[in-house]
Amino acid sequence: MVPHLTTALNGPLRDIERNTLDAQAAIEHWFRLQWQEHATPFYSSVDLRNAGFKLAPVDTNLFPGGFNNLNPAFLTLAVQAARVAVEKMCSSAQRFLVIPENHTRNLFYLQNVAALADILRKTGLTVRIGSLIPDLVEPLAIDLPDGSVLKLEPVKRTGDRLALDDFDPCAILLNNDLSAGVPEVLKGLDPMQTLLPPLHAGWSTRLKSNHFAAYRDVAEAFARVIGVDPWLIDPYFEQCGEVDFQTRDGEECLATHVEQVLAKIRHKYTEYGIDKEPFVIVKADAGTYGMGIMTVKSPDDVRDLNRRQRNKMAVVKEGLAVSNVLVQEGVYSFETIHEAVAEPVVYMIDHFVIGGFYRVHTTRGPDENLNAPGMHFVPLAFEETGCFADPNARPDAPINRFYTYGVLARLAALAAAIELENTDPEFNP
Amino acid sequence: MVPHLTTALNGPLRDIERNTLDAQAAIEHWFRLQWQEHATPFYSSVDLRNAGFKLAPVDTNLFPGGFNNLNPAFLTLAVQAARVAVEKMCSSAQRFLVIPENHTRNLFYLQNVAALADILRKTGLTVRIGSLIPDLVEPLAIDLPDGSVLKLEPVKRTGDRLALDDFDPCAILLNNDLSAGVPEVLKGLDPMQTLLPPLHAGWSTRLKSNHFAAYRDVAEAFARVIGVDPWLIDPYFEQCGEVDFQTRDGEECLATHVEQVLAKIRHKYTEYGIDKEPFVIVKADAGTYGMGIMTVKSPDDVRDLNRRQRNKMAVVKEGLAVSNVLVQEGVYSFETIHEAVAEPVVYMIDHFVIGGFYRVHTTRGPDENLNAPGMHFVPLAFEETGCFADPNARPDAPINRFYTYGVLARLAALAAAIELENTDPEFNP
Repeated sequence: MVPHLTTALNGPLRDIERNTLDAQAAIEHWFRLQWQEHATPFYSSVDLRNAGFKLAPVDTNLFPGGFNNLNPAFLTLAVQAARVAVEKMCSSAQRFLVIPENHTRNLFYLQNVAALADILRKTGLTVRIGSLIPDLVEPLAIDLPDGSVLKLEPVKRTGDRLALDDFDPCAILLNNDLSAGVPEVLKGLDPMQTLLPPLHAGWSTRLKSNHFAAYRDVAEAFARVIGVDPWLIDPYFEQCGEVDFQTRDGEECLATHVEQVLAKIRHKYTEYGIDKEPFVIVKADAGTYGMGIMTVKSPDDVRDLNRRQRNKMAVVKEGLAVSNVLVQEGVYSFETIHEAVAEPVVYMIDHFVIGGFYRVHTTRGPDENLNAPGMHFVPLAFEETGCFADPNARPDAPINRFYTYGVLARLAALAAAIELENTDPEFNP
Repeated sequence: MVPHLTTALNGPLRDIERNTLDAQAAIEHWFRLQWQEHATPFYSSVDLRNAGFKLAPVDTNLFPGGFNNLNPAFLTLAVQAARVAVEKMCSSAQRFLVIPENHTRNLFYLQNVAALADILRKTGLTVRIGSLIPDLVEPLAIDLPDGSVLKLEPVKRTGDRLALDDFDPCAILLNNDLSAGVPEVLKGLDPMQTLLPPLHAGWSTRLKSNHFAAYRDVAEAFARVIGVDPWLIDPYFEQCGEVDFQTRDGEECLATHVEQVLAKIRHKYTEYGIDKEPFVIVKADAGTYGMGIMTVKSPDDVRDLNRRQRNKMAVVKEGLAVSNVLVQEGVYSFETIHEAVAEPVVYMIDHFVIGGFYRVHTTRGPDENLNAPGMHFVPLAFEETGCFADPNARPDAPINRFYTYGVLARLAALAAAIELENTDPEFNP
């Protein structure tokens, strides 16, 4: 079952898919050169939006949380990719510590942790799950919906190393996005104890604007390779610093940027004859989980917020106050399945696409964010991995559409690699 | 459908499978360290024999010819592994030349070439097939059983580079084992035009004894990792130089070595209480395709050869005269399917297992070579990739048996890597 596009495939997307397919050798060659220059994140997931006339990543997650939603048929692929990642990370790594989010009630999330641990164990690592939950003093066994048991163990600091009881890991993989800041226990670790992703990838420091600035350059270079307008794969964005939704400081700056981005989109819609209303997404530049996200179609929308809307925008996950705000071009999602809006999420380990799934959301519209708090979505695993194309099939055949999705996701992962280089505190003191 | 062992699983194999499963983390860690030290062959296939009490590789092919027999469900895995291999080989490689054997009538073989080219194309390379057939002057299109067409093009030398018309490949992959010697056109190529496997991997120079000497060391080190007797995974062998089956020169040397190897096997069979008749395989130390292969149970068997047997032993593929002879411990194959003997063949690209198949042979016994000229076998694709184990399943469950097969095959590939280092003419002038 593959979602279908509700708009007719018109010029621009046909160009992206056709050109991607035709340029497959050039694309893979280009990626090979890029991966030589840039260290890929250990893992990532990328939310894409397909408007029919435009296809773009809208969010790149460096702590992906949906491994349980992937197609079990591609497990081997994930394991093989993880082997490559582990080899790079530290060939001596044998004992591996995974640190998840502190949720103990979100069983879907914990099923993801179990799926991730399973992939890592299948590479031949000894994997244990360490928890940052402050008051956890002894191991906590949690029954999962699939009948398995996940054991969370309290982490402890021994000198400059992080450990569990009787377990000194060679490497630590964070599946905790550090929204609440970097806990003391993770600071100043022995450099021999590899910590991935690096601390500055956490949401307490990471800015979406840094990511999309890096993505802009990547998309431009890539658009030259396949010969399309970079706008077709890259959403416009602007950044506002120092916005306080409660005191309304910075509101005019925000309204101005909204107007600017809307004007640029309108210009492109005219150029391509797209008969849709432009919109932007206003969201926190730091933070995740879709709190504080607004769909905005006019600068007045950000001027006339009521108290409830202000409160909703003013905090993000773990209570961080919003200050930097991102104004990003909204990309319609015109993929639907059984009349519900569907948004593809592509998963990668190292630079390998290992599948993905659709977020299928029955109560949201094509111009709304599908990754929102309290969101109920039905995950629909990809039927194809997106690893390769079939030049003999139509450009929009599922195997080729998923390949294009995989290419876009790899562009976002490459942008994340460059973003992490650019923001590495070691080189930017 | 998975073949079953006709012997009861007795002590030793249970040990190999049990210990392999228990030591999975140590095994993968050990392999990671090995692959840092040694450059894996681009691809390989390994013939295994499973006697129930012993499990060992008996042949390691560096020009594997059965990609068409692999399970199509694992194609993605092969493509991902090939991506890793291509990245190492030459990140700038974009145009890739595959040079197959000169057979134009063996459609099964040519279907393999097409399957291999398909894997490489799916990594995003531009792949063309160059032929060494001496009298080929223009492209030859061959219709394959699956309805596709394979185009062979004559290779030409332009200065120190190998090319096709309008095609200057960055890299050349040999699927031709060079049994007839290294053709002039392949000698002294531009070092920037990567040629894999290296010329000294060809059967005109490669000796099985070098491979199994390297394998002996690898097996010993590995046996220490999992705590088993190395003999359980390593066949004894001896080498006789200068045997001429026609003139009977060297016959006594051969008989002596046969007796020595049989005596050593007999000793081990007694130690483990194995109630089987020991046998050895006598085969050419160089060469392939199973010509000149004999099952021998007594030194007299090599003394009393009739003229027909002598002729059969005296030549191998492409008419090479046998001189060096390998006397290798025979490993029974007690795997059967529908009462036919089955021998697993594991395929690898780089150091990744990508599946394999069984050679199922209805007319041969458990002590006979199943890879013989004119051999008709039914390939039965593996149901599991062999990439990882399931510690919760029985040690002899298919997923775990295939994992053990994958481990043994990787040991053989590692031995091949070391063998190629040891025999590299650049370092052994």
